[in-house]
Amino acid sequence: MALQALAFDVFGTVVDWRSTVSRESGPYLAKIGRSDIDLDCFADGWRARYISTLLTYRESGRKFVVLDVLHREMLEDWLRELKIDPGAFSEAELGNWTKIWHRLDPWPDSAEGLTRLKARYPIVTLSNGNVALMIAMAKHANLPWDAILGAEFTRSYKPDPATYTGTVAALGLELQEVCLVAAHHADLAVARSLGMLTAYVDRPLEYGGAPHPDIAAAQAWDHAADSMISLAAQLGC
Amino acid sequence: MALQALAFDVFGTVVDWRSTVSRESGPYLAKIGRSDIDLDCFADGWRARYISTLLTYRESGRKFVVLDVLHREMLEDWLRELKIDPGAFSEAELGNWTKIWHRLDPWPDSAEGLTRLKARYPIVTLSNGNVALMIAMAKHANLPWDAILGAEFTRSYKPDPATYTGTVAALGLELQEVCLVAAHHADLAVARSLGMLTAYVDRPLEYGGAPHPDIAAAQAWDHAADSMISLAAQLGC
Repeated sequence: MALQALAFDVFGTVVDWRSTVSRESGPYLAKIGRSDIDLDCFADGWRARYISTLLTYRESGRKFVVLDVLHREMLEDWLRELKIDPGAFSEAELGNWTKIWHRLDPWPDSAEGLTRLKARYPIVTLSNGNVALMIAMAKHANLPWDAILGAEFTRSYKPDPATYTGTVAALGLELQEVCLVAAHHADLAVARSLGMLTAYVDRPLEYGGAPHPDIAAAQAWDHAADSMISLAAQLGC
Repeated sequence: MALQALAFDVFGTVVDWRSTVSRESGPYLAKIGRSDIDLDCFADGWRARYISTLLTYRESGRKFVVLDVLHREMLEDWLRELKIDPGAFSEAELGNWTKIWHRLDPWPDSAEGLTRLKARYPIVTLSNGNVALMIAMAKHANLPWDAILGAEFTRSYKPDPATYTGTVAALGLELQEVCLVAAHHADLAVARSLGMLTAYVDRPLEYGGAPHPDIAAAQAWDHAADSMISLAAQLGC
């Protein structure tokens, strides 16, 4: 069977969460006199909570709640670990801080690459981000998605196989007709184990140049590129 | 509260199902020597089954299945009523015939009007069409949706209130911040009863010039326009 549609991981693959979260968290921490905190480390700590929470979400037995809710909980948890009382901020401040994830900047090649890929294939999100977050991000970063699928649509979080299989089913396609595009080997490994096609996009700056935490999961993927534009060229778009 | 997003009915409001279904059904009926059947009546009969099936879907207790499946069942049912054995057609023929609904032509103003509206507001589908159908239709008719919500996302069919409330919840908004855009008074009446804003777009040719079946549900809606372009102008887009 041939490729019929592309499904994308988003955080880290299409947008640069670290630099945006770092930059926009600065004023909040400065306001309470905590400019001593390294902003990149602050962003990394928030993101680390995301990874650990979602890796075990299915096993936790917790009912599905959207990522906006989880991002807010993780922020408050991380602040407490830094000995900061979340009550030092207003409800509006905590809400806006959490919504940094709605306005992450894209990698420089994302909008052009996705636009080229979309001319030939349906392009959908297969991300843990919720619908409202993904719509806001798409407007901010000019991402021309055909549909927002993934976590909220399937009421499950990657790496739960249901997130992948439910997204592919909504496209009316077989698993081997849909390619997951991701900068993360562990994400691609789940997709491959289910029978999906795989495309790796290298994002060496996702962690500021440090190795990705899932480097050990690296394999020879069906496609590998160093940008969305390069992937588009490889796929004849 | 002010308008924050627009949610659209699609069949009849954004696309002209009748002329496309009529035109594309001709060759199938001609193939079996049934050119005596009026093609507009054929389209109307198929659509009538859609309306009666979905009006009672919730009460039927049937598990959610996507509209592609229901459209196929309705086609076979309608053929039998016309004394045509569906077995006169191959599986591929019946599948392609059903997929007429994936490639409906837009009303002439839809693509331009939606593009203008999208520049200011998120625009999402609040249709009974499934995701695969809506993606294919959007590519065919150049409809720039921000997200495909509605029936498959909420696992319910309009006029079930869950379809409306689930779509609004996914946008992270309150009901009174989202406007349903529809050519159908009965659809708008449900939206208004739930607290949503309402915009009527007149489509006098949906039934070939005949009155709409839900004319008795007409009310003074929050907005009324004779095209998507006119609606965009009214909303300052």
